[in-house]
Amino acid sequence: MADTVRINEVGPRDGLQSQGKTLSVEDRLAMIGHLVGVGIRNLEAGSFVSPKAVPQMAGTDRVFAALPSSDSVRYAGLIPNMKGYELALAAGARVMNVVLSVTETMNQKNIRMSLDQTAQVCEAIVRRGCDDGVEVQAYLAVAFECPFEGRVAPSVVRQFAEHMQAAGAAKIIIADTIGAANPAQVRQVLQEVSRVAPLEKVSCHFHDTRGMALANILASVDCGVREFDSSIGGLGGCPFSPGATGNVATEDVVLMLDSMGYQTGIDPLELVPVVREVEALTGMSLGGKSFRWLTQQWEKRNEGPGHGG
Amino acid sequence: MADTVRINEVGPRDGLQSQGKTLSVEDRLAMIGHLVGVGIRNLEAGSFVSPKAVPQMAGTDRVFAALPSSDSVRYAGLIPNMKGYELALAAGARVMNVVLSVTETMNQKNIRMSLDQTAQVCEAIVRRGCDDGVEVQAYLAVAFECPFEGRVAPSVVRQFAEHMQAAGAAKIIIADTIGAANPAQVRQVLQEVSRVAPLEKVSCHFHDTRGMALANILASVDCGVREFDSSIGGLGGCPFSPGATGNVATEDVVLMLDSMGYQTGIDPLELVPVVREVEALTGMSLGGKSFRWLTQQWEKRNEGPGHGG
Repeated sequence: MADTVRINEVGPRDGLQSQGKTLSVEDRLAMIGHLVGVGIRNLEAGSFVSPKAVPQMAGTDRVFAALPSSDSVRYAGLIPNMKGYELALAAGARVMNVVLSVTETMNQKNIRMSLDQTAQVCEAIVRRGCDDGVEVQAYLAVAFECPFEGRVAPSVVRQFAEHMQAAGAAKIIIADTIGAANPAQVRQVLQEVSRVAPLEKVSCHFHDTRGMALANILASVDCGVREFDSSIGGLGGCPFSPGATGNVATEDVVLMLDSMGYQTGIDPLELVPVVREVEALTGMSLGGKSFRWLTQQWEKRNEGPGHGG
Repeated sequence: MADTVRINEVGPRDGLQSQGKTLSVEDRLAMIGHLVGVGIRNLEAGSFVSPKAVPQMAGTDRVFAALPSSDSVRYAGLIPNMKGYELALAAGARVMNVVLSVTETMNQKNIRMSLDQTAQVCEAIVRRGCDDGVEVQAYLAVAFECPFEGRVAPSVVRQFAEHMQAAGAAKIIIADTIGAANPAQVRQVLQEVSRVAPLEKVSCHFHDTRGMALANILASVDCGVREFDSSIGGLGGCPFSPGATGNVATEDVVLMLDSMGYQTGIDPLELVPVVREVEALTGMSLGGKSFRWLTQQWEKRNEGPGHGG
């Protein structure tokens, strides 16, 4: 049971990107500093996209230039295309994420490209990364359900996982982009994917839209997956109902895995002040499902003898 | 996968009991009527305790006298002792619940009895039930962690499960009273319990204090458990943060099991208006983790063509 599970914090990119408020480069670096300070060792630090399209991510090159020491931390940058790759490379990114939605309509509606075109772009970037010594991680988005095409067959996910694996992807991330997965489906998809890629290099990205994210993570970890995306405080959900529809909260994932005996390198209670710092930076009310309980425990620990003054 | 899982709704007792507002007998019957109307077939309808101690449950005898047709519904009444048994019997209850906390301190602090004494009382009631043709269900409370004694050894839970099984309990319910269980511990406890009682007659009761209730239910259903307690809208949690620390919400449990292909006999979307009715009756803001999403889906279905005008 002393297995290690990696937590990949996506708050500074995926989380911030869907918020109304745009944080300065300095504030984003402060947020990253807090996360790294409590033991986060895998982190999506920004994206190299047009600042016109995504103003929240403007200045990602400056974020990368000023990141806290990266010897033990893997900082990833999201890139939409080869141009983004060049920008990320110039900014010193050594880990990059590409996104391949696995249905035709999602690609057409979302980025006005065909599924084939997107797959080719992603494959070319993965291959280029191999040449340059850059780790390119491939997200397979809407891997469980597409908002336009409905349920996705597990064999489709397997097919694209195989493409990305063959191209040399450093990691394959199965993403439940709209939070529609259930544990039975998670097992089916992972079983298919495991036929073409070892689950040690597979990660999962779950949203908590239907309240099942932790159950889906349990199903995945049972299958052998040892890395998960999460967002501090559930950042990235709907601003009117924090945590209700967005990314699963880092503190919830860490608490469950830690309780089960997995090593994450992160003390779940130490995430409490980080959530509060990120609340202050974003002006959002944050916190996963365990946050209330974690806060009580954290306060108890810090108000104990020797801390009271 | 077409397995059936029973949902035991505890809102009308466990849920209401911890609320400030005391509902009239008529309102409690209305609540029960709504629940039965959407397919709930197992339900804790009240408790036969002193109305001085628990005013919320006053008039449970009148609730039982006026319950909707019980041919297909199992209505249970909680009883604290043999006096409660007699009251419940006189009121026509055919299913009764006893609670045995499995640690010494919990019994001393909670009901001023020793663990031995409580076990003897429960055993006597179970045996009496067998004589009278009454099904007595035995709750093993604080089965994972006691607020006073900390973690409970799985072998202790097994020992009391064995006592209750030998006495003739109709069901053994493993209760995570303070919401401290994690999926790994759930598996350990259920493995121990399965040595002394078939898991078909074991049920589980989880709280969502640490956000892990659905993951714990997944672990239990994987082990072979086919009945779970839940409370409509998460009723019974903290009034300031609905669903955050209380019973797992019925709609969350039904949605997950239904999504996985289990038969519960309940359409998860039909729980949306029930949550709203119970909100109106209790004056509480309710709703589990999936409630926001379920509400959107329910509104979409009911605003579709043919419903609009």
